[in-house]
Amino acid sequence: MSPKRWKLIIEYDGTNYSGWQRQQDVPSIQQSIEDAITLFCQQDIPIFAAGRTDAGVHAGGQVAHFDLDYGDRPLSPYNLAKAINAHLRDQPISILGAEEVAPDFHARFNATSKMYCYQILNRPAPPTFQANQVWHVNMPLNADAMHEAAQVLIGHHDFTSFRDSQCQANSPLRTLDRLDVYREGDLIKIEAEARSFLHHQIRNFAGTLILVGQGKWDKDGIKHALHKKDRKAAGVTAPPSGLSLLRVDF
Amino acid sequence: MSPKRWKLIIEYDGTNYSGWQRQQDVPSIQQSIEDAITLFCQQDIPIFAAGRTDAGVHAGGQVAHFDLDYGDRPLSPYNLAKAINAHLRDQPISILGAEEVAPDFHARFNATSKMYCYQILNRPAPPTFQANQVWHVNMPLNADAMHEAAQVLIGHHDFTSFRDSQCQANSPLRTLDRLDVYREGDLIKIEAEARSFLHHQIRNFAGTLILVGQGKWDKDGIKHALHKKDRKAAGVTAPPSGLSLLRVDF
Repeated sequence: MSPKRWKLIIEYDGTNYSGWQRQQDVPSIQQSIEDAITLFCQQDIPIFAAGRTDAGVHAGGQVAHFDLDYGDRPLSPYNLAKAINAHLRDQPISILGAEEVAPDFHARFNATSKMYCYQILNRPAPPTFQANQVWHVNMPLNADAMHEAAQVLIGHHDFTSFRDSQCQANSPLRTLDRLDVYREGDLIKIEAEARSFLHHQIRNFAGTLILVGQGKWDKDGIKHALHKKDRKAAGVTAPPSGLSLLRVDF
Repeated sequence: MSPKRWKLIIEYDGTNYSGWQRQQDVPSIQQSIEDAITLFCQQDIPIFAAGRTDAGVHAGGQVAHFDLDYGDRPLSPYNLAKAINAHLRDQPISILGAEEVAPDFHARFNATSKMYCYQILNRPAPPTFQANQVWHVNMPLNADAMHEAAQVLIGHHDFTSFRDSQCQANSPLRTLDRLDVYREGDLIKIEAEARSFLHHQIRNFAGTLILVGQGKWDKDGIKHALHKKDRKAAGVTAPPSGLSLLRVDF
């Protein structure tokens, strides 16, 4: 039997991990899942994710693939997910689902769209439950003004102003499909959708849009920052805790 | 100046506390807040809560009152909440708001209604973020059937079957005003509203209603359990992690 390719949908709390990618001497989501797969099938198998989330960033719908030669023993998607979860029991990482896919499926290269959500807890009182899942912003923010200004960023642009200075991408050009900002009680949610993002792009959007929420900037400020093509023209990089990769489409 | 009476609205993650009530040698929410008040004003002041939540139970809207003699110095509600929060910084307890109330206001005796929510994470995959905020139930549950059966419990009844055998209340009679069950994605929420509840009443509702959700019982099963007036006639006590006191009305 040749190996089968499996797709996993993964949820994790990235707080205590150095990010998705396996690195020497620090905990990573990738290593935890690869170790769990090894414990289940006694093989060392690399897994490939749709997006490499940074340290402290979470996921509610990360996607990864890997190849498994399980001989001629039957293996259902339900049992595969259950077996991996059994070896992740002490960690905040959970396989939500598994699916057998075509041998040429690739979680990163076949992804047509990714949806992230950035959460701001906007109230004077510090967070309790949600401490690691939000950016706590004390000053009142106008979510409607943030949403209106965010629309300036939609479309195909040079996003140099919102890209980390260490970003490894060849080009600063990206097409942003959606950037919605709305309030749910004390939470402000920023939902971003695109085929791919630059390093820190959404966290830099969040750190810049709060200037609009506070009334310091209007949408022309955002337009100006975009056109400057200079990282220093935009706002701060919001902390990783607020960010979650919620969905990957293929 | 005579002391002023203050009302606090409080959010907390009860996971690592023995409950609201101050006890010897174990951490409690009450003690943490009283200690924070002492650090702020150098006085030992007792606080009184609307409801004494159990170990591991949370709150999004607990209410408590206390009397503070702050001399003739001005003290705004905003600054009082901020000052207490400053001394709770390392704990998952947060004062959401403060309000000066009449000297005869009592958080427990004046409460006309309390609203709790019990959360079940209903999916095969284990929880990550929400591990301490839900009851994880693997088997698929029919939330609509649970809601329909829950309506049998509305009204004035002898709730002996849903009351902890150690419950200290004089009477097992209570009037349940609302018990709504609904699904939000993988979460099933059970919202309960009444002037007061018996010990473990909502957790025993949850542990019984899942029998309906699994199809083992129908609403006549719930009716039968209620009429038996016997704790053994109802289901298990659901774990504290799923329960939160969300609102107190006066």
